[in-house]
Amino acid sequence: MLKDISHKYRNFIPLHLEIEDIKILEEFAKIQRGNILKMTTNASSGHPGGSMSSVDIYTILFAFSDFTPENFNSLNRDRIVISHGHTSPGVYSVLGSLGFFDLHEAIAHFRQVGSPFEGHIENHIPGIDWSTGNLGQGLSAACGFALSQKMKGINKDVFVVMGDGEQQKGQISEARRFAKKFGLNNITCIVDYNNLQISGATQRVMYQDIKANFESDGWFVIEIDGHNFSQIYEAIRFAKNYSVSPVMILARTTMGKGVSFMENRHEYHGKPLTEEELDRALKELGIENDLKKYRKMRDKKIKKIKEVKSLLPPIFEIGSPILYSPETKTDNRSASGKALFDIASKNMDKLDSFAVFDCDLAGSVKTSSIEKNMKNSFFESGIMEHHTAVCSGALSRCGVITFWADFGVFGVDETYNQQRLNDINNTNLKVIVTHTGSDVGEDGKTHQCIDYLGLLRNLYGFKVIVPADPNQTDRVIRYVVNEWGNFCVAMGRSKCSVITNENGSPFFDEKYEFNYGKFDILREGKEVLILTYGPMVEKAIKIYEILKERGIDVGVVNVSCPLKIEDELMEKIKKAKLIITYEDHNPHSGLYASICDKIVEKGISKKVIPFGITNYPPSGKSSDILKYLKIDPESIAEKILKELNG
Amino acid sequence: MLKDISHKYRNFIPLHLEIEDIKILEEFAKIQRGNILKMTTNASSGHPGGSMSSVDIYTILFAFSDFTPENFNSLNRDRIVISHGHTSPGVYSVLGSLGFFDLHEAIAHFRQVGSPFEGHIENHIPGIDWSTGNLGQGLSAACGFALSQKMKGINKDVFVVMGDGEQQKGQISEARRFAKKFGLNNITCIVDYNNLQISGATQRVMYQDIKANFESDGWFVIEIDGHNFSQIYEAIRFAKNYSVSPVMILARTTMGKGVSFMENRHEYHGKPLTEEELDRALKELGIENDLKKYRKMRDKKIKKIKEVKSLLPPIFEIGSPILYSPETKTDNRSASGKALFDIASKNMDKLDSFAVFDCDLAGSVKTSSIEKNMKNSFFESGIMEHHTAVCSGALSRCGVITFWADFGVFGVDETYNQQRLNDINNTNLKVIVTHTGSDVGEDGKTHQCIDYLGLLRNLYGFKVIVPADPNQTDRVIRYVVNEWGNFCVAMGRSKCSVITNENGSPFFDEKYEFNYGKFDILREGKEVLILTYGPMVEKAIKIYEILKERGIDVGVVNVSCPLKIEDELMEKIKKAKLIITYEDHNPHSGLYASICDKIVEKGISKKVIPFGITNYPPSGKSSDILKYLKIDPESIAEKILKELNG
Repeated sequence: MLKDISHKYRNFIPLHLEIEDIKILEEFAKIQRGNILKMTTNASSGHPGGSMSSVDIYTILFAFSDFTPENFNSLNRDRIVISHGHTSPGVYSVLGSLGFFDLHEAIAHFRQVGSPFEGHIENHIPGIDWSTGNLGQGLSAACGFALSQKMKGINKDVFVVMGDGEQQKGQISEARRFAKKFGLNNITCIVDYNNLQISGATQRVMYQDIKANFESDGWFVIEIDGHNFSQIYEAIRFAKNYSVSPVMILARTTMGKGVSFMENRHEYHGKPLTEEELDRALKELGIENDLKKYRKMRDKKIKKIKEVKSLLPPIFEIGSPILYSPETKTDNRSASGKALFDIASKNMDKLDSFAVFDCDLAGSVKTSSIEKNMKNSFFESGIMEHHTAVCSGALSRCGVITFWADFGVFGVDETYNQQRLNDINNTNLKVIVTHTGSDVGEDGKTHQCIDYLGLLRNLYGFKVIVPADPNQTDRVIRYVVNEWGNFCVAMGRSKCSVITNENGSPFFDEKYEFNYGKFDILREGKEVLILTYGPMVEKAIKIYEILKERGIDVGVVNVSCPLKIEDELMEKIKKAKLIITYEDHNPHSGLYASICDKIVEKGISKKVIPFGITNYPPSGKSSDILKYLKIDPESIAEKILKELNG
Repeated sequence: MLKDISHKYRNFIPLHLEIEDIKILEEFAKIQRGNILKMTTNASSGHPGGSMSSVDIYTILFAFSDFTPENFNSLNRDRIVISHGHTSPGVYSVLGSLGFFDLHEAIAHFRQVGSPFEGHIENHIPGIDWSTGNLGQGLSAACGFALSQKMKGINKDVFVVMGDGEQQKGQISEARRFAKKFGLNNITCIVDYNNLQISGATQRVMYQDIKANFESDGWFVIEIDGHNFSQIYEAIRFAKNYSVSPVMILARTTMGKGVSFMENRHEYHGKPLTEEELDRALKELGIENDLKKYRKMRDKKIKKIKEVKSLLPPIFEIGSPILYSPETKTDNRSASGKALFDIASKNMDKLDSFAVFDCDLAGSVKTSSIEKNMKNSFFESGIMEHHTAVCSGALSRCGVITFWADFGVFGVDETYNQQRLNDINNTNLKVIVTHTGSDVGEDGKTHQCIDYLGLLRNLYGFKVIVPADPNQTDRVIRYVVNEWGNFCVAMGRSKCSVITNENGSPFFDEKYEFNYGKFDILREGKEVLILTYGPMVEKAIKIYEILKERGIDVGVVNVSCPLKIEDELMEKIKKAKLIITYEDHNPHSGLYASICDKIVEKGISKKVIPFGITNYPPSGKSSDILKYLKIDPESIAEKILKELNG
């Protein structure tokens, strides 16, 4: 039995596998092949070909790593990332056989609605560290896990198994460079090189020299036969102990390995066997065909599996707020950077649980003080945003409070899908984006991020906060530190005034407490109600002042969480005569959209005029752009007057 | 004068530059350096450092290529892509000096609102082929241009200049592989290797061996001194004539080259000189300081530049629609593939103006018949979606009708930013996305595309169409072929019924004509109005049938363009008692959001109940998922009944 020898080879300590143990492995893997075929035929769906090609690697990895049904909820263990998540039948089969969950449940309920055993592997299942499916993501996640081990002094390993087709994804080259730069020699990558992808032979689909690619990024490469247990074992053992660089094991394998009529047939990438084919295949493998049993089980209730727990970071001291006086003229990104540095300074004993990522913009996003003073918590990731999004997301699941600061177009637009995958992975990432809206200096269209609410609105777990001034920014940064979940804190580039009460005292004063979703009434007024957020708040107050002089009763509300509109705000809206939304964003996916949604939900009939960005703006200073687009305070005050006068 | 020798070296024909001509080049480049400094100081913004590092390369490229103020609106010419678009001062200066536009205008109005001379280069300016800014995009665009030359038998070249920092972006590795695979030896890439990026020395920011990276992807690499005109000229001349593979010229340069106190100082990446520094720098260069003149000009009216025209593809025969009878049960993606193949077949004489891109999913997205029968129009781009999005976008600007078919999560989610950049570049791309909604087979969360409307809603130039059945799909594909602009045609994976009139005849019959924005009343009814699209249409009709039996008067409207809600539809909405939106999408960014927006705009008060996807769905068959989420037709009919009774 494999369980009997698992202990013997745990942590890849012996030099070689013994011959009789190889037989046990071969027998075990054969059974897994049978399971894979039953599972996919039972589901009439799934990916048997790649599963059979990877399953010998999975057998060795899961059987001998320090990653067990007992320790999967701990940090102090090896980690295994399966990047080609469609090989779920192979993964589930091996994990089930090793006792992470009930194997029969997986075979019976694979890909069934309501079952935990979904189409691609997901990290709610014991033994699965990262949900994958979209290709090219696994090595970036592995880097995040490997970083957490290095930061926390955990002397364990991260193994990542990848497909060959996915090596075409550019993100993998980013991850390679990152791993090399940060000396992540605790990563061992195994590429299942069966040379087939959906469209046929890998080298016919795309020119690629995988070995040369890895070597060009400073990795050490070993080539092995991926179905030879001795070679797999010894290569992993070598890689684990090799400290000069991360190691990639190029494992030559056969798609559909083990069943003659499936071998090297790319059609079996994503197609299960028919019942008749299954019967033939199982006969060839010498395995009993008990598909009927699983067909019956499929109609029965699905059992619960053990819970995979989120590894919470330690609670950080958030310190006392920095108060910016009304005389101060600074930008929110500076306030954000200061708050972040202040928090880090107050938790110097916990910096092994604190990380800040940068993509070559530390000076602009104001994380330079972290870079200078908390070197081991600062990760300069270069111009590699896709990798950085996933890597920081994975790290955030390892008990590390993780921030990534970048421009809006990089932290949200360029990496939307990576943030979506983070969200699916229940990460705990804090994304600080600066240079949002048209407020990006004079960099122009490609840098203007006028859609971040429209994008993050789609992600069910992401919360977005757009603070109004340096004081609120300070409080928001302190707030998100200890709050679990994905947050995006957005800000523009320009300096903004400290928002004050009518008496001139700071609105967000020492008594102010931020709560997600809470709106702030900055100016009371009932005739016209301006709803706004972020850098437009001070401009809305300007409109208020202009109109006040003209005798108009204007209220100004700071909606710093534009994706969460509270019922109480709707009560205010009901009472006003005219509602204005004012944003440095596309209104049709921004605050205006949120308000419309809620107005319809509440059955209110109300005139709302949206002011915002309605096409790709020109390049220029923020204030000039607003004037050019006629959404500067003066123009808007004028328009409101016209509207009121009919 | 450079103009005098431009002709002599046009097309890089002579073997070497003559010594006296090098002097002319040096003098010209020196003046450009002065222009760069004046331009950025005048704007108090911009990127002088990299501009001065690249300007010698720009001088040779723009002066000697077959790309002139006379031919920039033609296809039959060289193309030049500047990937590090922040070097706009260098590009504008050289282009202005060569007569593409008035140089003084560029110096005077750089980065000024309303000026064509925006922060990063944009392709509305003569001499600029592709708007860049976000890094790592240029080589992909160059591949698109190079493909168009190969397809149309244009014996010209594509030159692309890139920064060194941006080599960290993974997308560049994708573009390299694509160029190698398709034998794009008409591409010459020049990397400005000044070894400095925003955060300091490039090799300190990120581990990278640029030469080894290119060589590992099969490129030929030449190293030169990027400030030595002879070397630049000869290297480009060699690369132009080298046919074995594309060539990368690694040009070692100096950031801030030409002004002693700027050289090798990364601070000057994005910071202009002060007036005092400018004076010193111009003295050192021996150039008169006429900043005052430009300061004055800045306040004057901005002159118009010559128009850059979109190169329209030939009009294609769209053939006769394929009519699917009510007995047919097929999927929209098959209908899409058939229509595409039918159109291609009817335009065999124009296939040099027709391209279909695939990312290893031809079988699933139904473009295999194009692959088999129109080999030269089919581009298998492997698992490299970021590159493919930009490459296909660039090709679509070269008089080629360009389609890219992929799953929704890849064609929209993963490449959102690339589509945004395409949109900014006014491309003419037709993106067909299949496997949208939760209708992706049993692949699960990572593959479910329940946000495509929420994403594309942000792009001002993108139109989205979600056809209801195979007949409408056929018509939509034929429609988009000859319509200029970016279109996304979205469909699910499952088979869907042919939508019929109540009498059983196909609704989208031979008389049906698709028009963007037009909605279809499938069932008349006034009490309850169901607004829906795509694969949910047949399910809405089922609801209609269930409720009809219960005596409820239900209307069903197909809103196949959910981002464009027509006023006429609002009239219908006004009249109904209860509105239902029904979609395989997040309603809060989907059709429901569009309807709410319009309801508020029109000041209508109306109860609307949204049915859609409100969290990441489980994996399973589409019909099972809908049941599990209680949004299958039966559950919804039940809920509507309750609502009406309660």
